[in-house]
Amino acid sequence: MTTNQTSPAPIRVAINGYGNLGRGVEYAVHHSPDMELVAIFTRRDPSTLTTRYAPAVSVDDVAEYVGKVDVCILCGGSATDLQEQGPQFAEYFNVVDSFDTHAEIPAYFEAIDAVAREHGHVALISTGWDPGLFSINRVIAEAVLPEGQTHTFWGPGVSQGHSDAIRRIDGVVGGVQYTLPVEETKAAIAAGDTREFTTREKHRRECFVVAAEGADQERIRHEIVTMPNYFSDYDTTVHFISADELAEKHSGMPHGGDVIRSGRTSDTVQATYSFTLALGSNPEFTGAMVTATARAVARLYAAGYRGAATVLDVPPAYYSPKSPAELRAHSL
Amino acid sequence: MTTNQTSPAPIRVAINGYGNLGRGVEYAVHHSPDMELVAIFTRRDPSTLTTRYAPAVSVDDVAEYVGKVDVCILCGGSATDLQEQGPQFAEYFNVVDSFDTHAEIPAYFEAIDAVAREHGHVALISTGWDPGLFSINRVIAEAVLPEGQTHTFWGPGVSQGHSDAIRRIDGVVGGVQYTLPVEETKAAIAAGDTREFTTREKHRRECFVVAAEGADQERIRHEIVTMPNYFSDYDTTVHFISADELAEKHSGMPHGGDVIRSGRTSDTVQATYSFTLALGSNPEFTGAMVTATARAVARLYAAGYRGAATVLDVPPAYYSPKSPAELRAHSL
Repeated sequence: MTTNQTSPAPIRVAINGYGNLGRGVEYAVHHSPDMELVAIFTRRDPSTLTTRYAPAVSVDDVAEYVGKVDVCILCGGSATDLQEQGPQFAEYFNVVDSFDTHAEIPAYFEAIDAVAREHGHVALISTGWDPGLFSINRVIAEAVLPEGQTHTFWGPGVSQGHSDAIRRIDGVVGGVQYTLPVEETKAAIAAGDTREFTTREKHRRECFVVAAEGADQERIRHEIVTMPNYFSDYDTTVHFISADELAEKHSGMPHGGDVIRSGRTSDTVQATYSFTLALGSNPEFTGAMVTATARAVARLYAAGYRGAATVLDVPPAYYSPKSPAELRAHSL
Repeated sequence: MTTNQTSPAPIRVAINGYGNLGRGVEYAVHHSPDMELVAIFTRRDPSTLTTRYAPAVSVDDVAEYVGKVDVCILCGGSATDLQEQGPQFAEYFNVVDSFDTHAEIPAYFEAIDAVAREHGHVALISTGWDPGLFSINRVIAEAVLPEGQTHTFWGPGVSQGHSDAIRRIDGVVGGVQYTLPVEETKAAIAAGDTREFTTREKHRRECFVVAAEGADQERIRHEIVTMPNYFSDYDTTVHFISADELAEKHSGMPHGGDVIRSGRTSDTVQATYSFTLALGSNPEFTGAMVTATARAVARLYAAGYRGAATVLDVPPAYYSPKSPAELRAHSL
C-alpha cells in the first residue's frame, strides 16, 4: 500500500481508554501500515492491563508524550468521560473522539474548539457510524435531493441502554435487548412512500431475559413492555431464556442500520439514496472508523486546520492511506 | 432554509450544454434557494432553444459573462465535448463537470488543473454518481475496512452504449438495453461471501428490440448475444416488442446501483458497508449531484482552493446550503 505522498512518516497514534472501543482501535491502528501505535493511556494501574500492541501508560504521564504523538484517540467509555477528557487532551495533542450524545454536540464542539485553537491543535469530535458515517450520508443525501425525507433506522443490534434498563428490573438476573428496524416500513420508504411514520412503525424491540428462580415472569414482562421512553412506544417481544443460553447466543455486540432518503429529481420522478451498515461488532467497527478519522486529523493538521472539526469537514481522500493521484486513478 | 453564513449572496450559476443533463441541472439549480441561474450557454442558435429558467446564450458570448458567474456547470454530452470544453471554460470560470471516462480521468485532471491554476479557478471534475457518490463510498469504505473487498453493481438501468450497439444491428429499428445486477451475487457479498465473481455472475443484460418488418429475429438475437465486449460475457435476454410498446414502456432513463464492501473488523468478525441508489432518471439525478457539487465548488473557491479537484477533495458540509453550526446541531 502506498502511503500518502505528503506524509511519508508514520502517523504516531496514542489511545486513551482501554475498554471495548479502545481494543477495537488498537486492532485497527495495528493493521494500518501508515500508523504507529505509541502508547495506551489508562486511569487504571498500567501493570494490571494486558494490551496487545503498545505499552499501557498512566494518564498521569500524558504530558511526557507531547511531541511524540500526532493524534490521540479518545476512547472514553461515556459522554461524561469525554466531556472532561476531550478539552483536557486537546491541550496536549490533536485528538479524535466518538462523542455520541447528539443533543450536546454543539456545546461540546464549542468547549473543545476553544482549547484546541488556543493550543494549536485539531479536535475532531463525534466520529464513528452514528454520528459519523450516517451523518455524512444524511448531509449529502439532503443536499443532492432537497425535496424529500430522510429516515434513519437502527439495528438489528444490541442497545446497551435498553439492556441495562431490563437488568435493573427486580427479579431479572441477566438480559439483552435487540433493536430491530421494521422491514416493511424500510421497504416502503425505499419504494418512495412519503408518509410520516410513528416510532412504533419504524422500530421494534426484542428482549432475551434471564429471570431469577421463582420470579414472576408475567410481572417482569409487563414491567418491560410498559416502561416509558424505553419500551412503551414500541412493539416489544420478551423471551425468557437460561443464563447459559444468554452467554452462548447473546454475548456479541452486533449493530448497524440505514440512512434512507427518498426524494424527487423533478415533479414526478423519484430517487432513493440508501446507506446501510451491518456490523458484527459495534465497538470494533466504531474503532475502525475512529482510526480512519485519526488519519484524517493528521491530514487536516498538515493542511493548516486548527480547532474543532467533525466528519462534515473532512474530504473523503483524507481517510485513505493512498495518495490523491492513486485514488483518482483507481477509486474515482 | 438558512444559507451558509460565510456566503449569504446567491451563488451565480451558468450551464453549458442543454441536453438531458443540462435540463436536469436547470431544474436542480432553480430549486436551490441559494443559487441564481444566470445563463444557459449553447453551441446551437440560442433562438431555437426553449429553456425554462434562464436565457439561452451563444457560446460565442461566454467571455461577456466573466465576473457575472461564480460557477459554470459543464453539461457537455460526451467525453469528447468535455475534454475540449473543460480546459476552455476553466479559463473563464470556476467549473464543474461529470466527466465519466474512468481510464482518462488522470490525464483530464492534469490538463484542466494546469488551466485552472493559471487562471485562478477551481475545476471540479467527474462528479455525479459513478464517478461521484460511488467514488466517495469506495474510498471511505476501503479506508474504514482495509481488510475486505469492494464490489460495484450497476442497474437496474438503461445503458445508452449498449442500446446504441443494438440499434446498429441490421434489421433493428429500435431498442433499449437494461443492465441488471445479479441479485443472488449481491446478497452473497452483503452476507460476507469473499469469493471472486465473474462478469457473468455480477450482471445480466435484458434487451427490448423492435425488428424491421420481415427481419430475421433469430439472426438479430444471435448477433446481440454473441457481440464481443458488449454482450458475449453476460447472460443476455432478448425480447422483441412493437414500436408502440417501446415508446410507451421504455422511454425513461432509470438507473442506479450499489457499492458494497464486505470486510473484517477483527480476525473473525464481519462488517458490511453498502451504498445504494435507485434513480427514476439518470440524467436528472446526475444533474442534482452536479448542482450540489457546484455549491461545493463555490465554497472551495471561497476557502482559497485553486486548481483541479474531485469529490474526494470536498468536505461533506460544502454540498449543503446549511451552515456548519446548523448541520452539527441537526444532521450530525
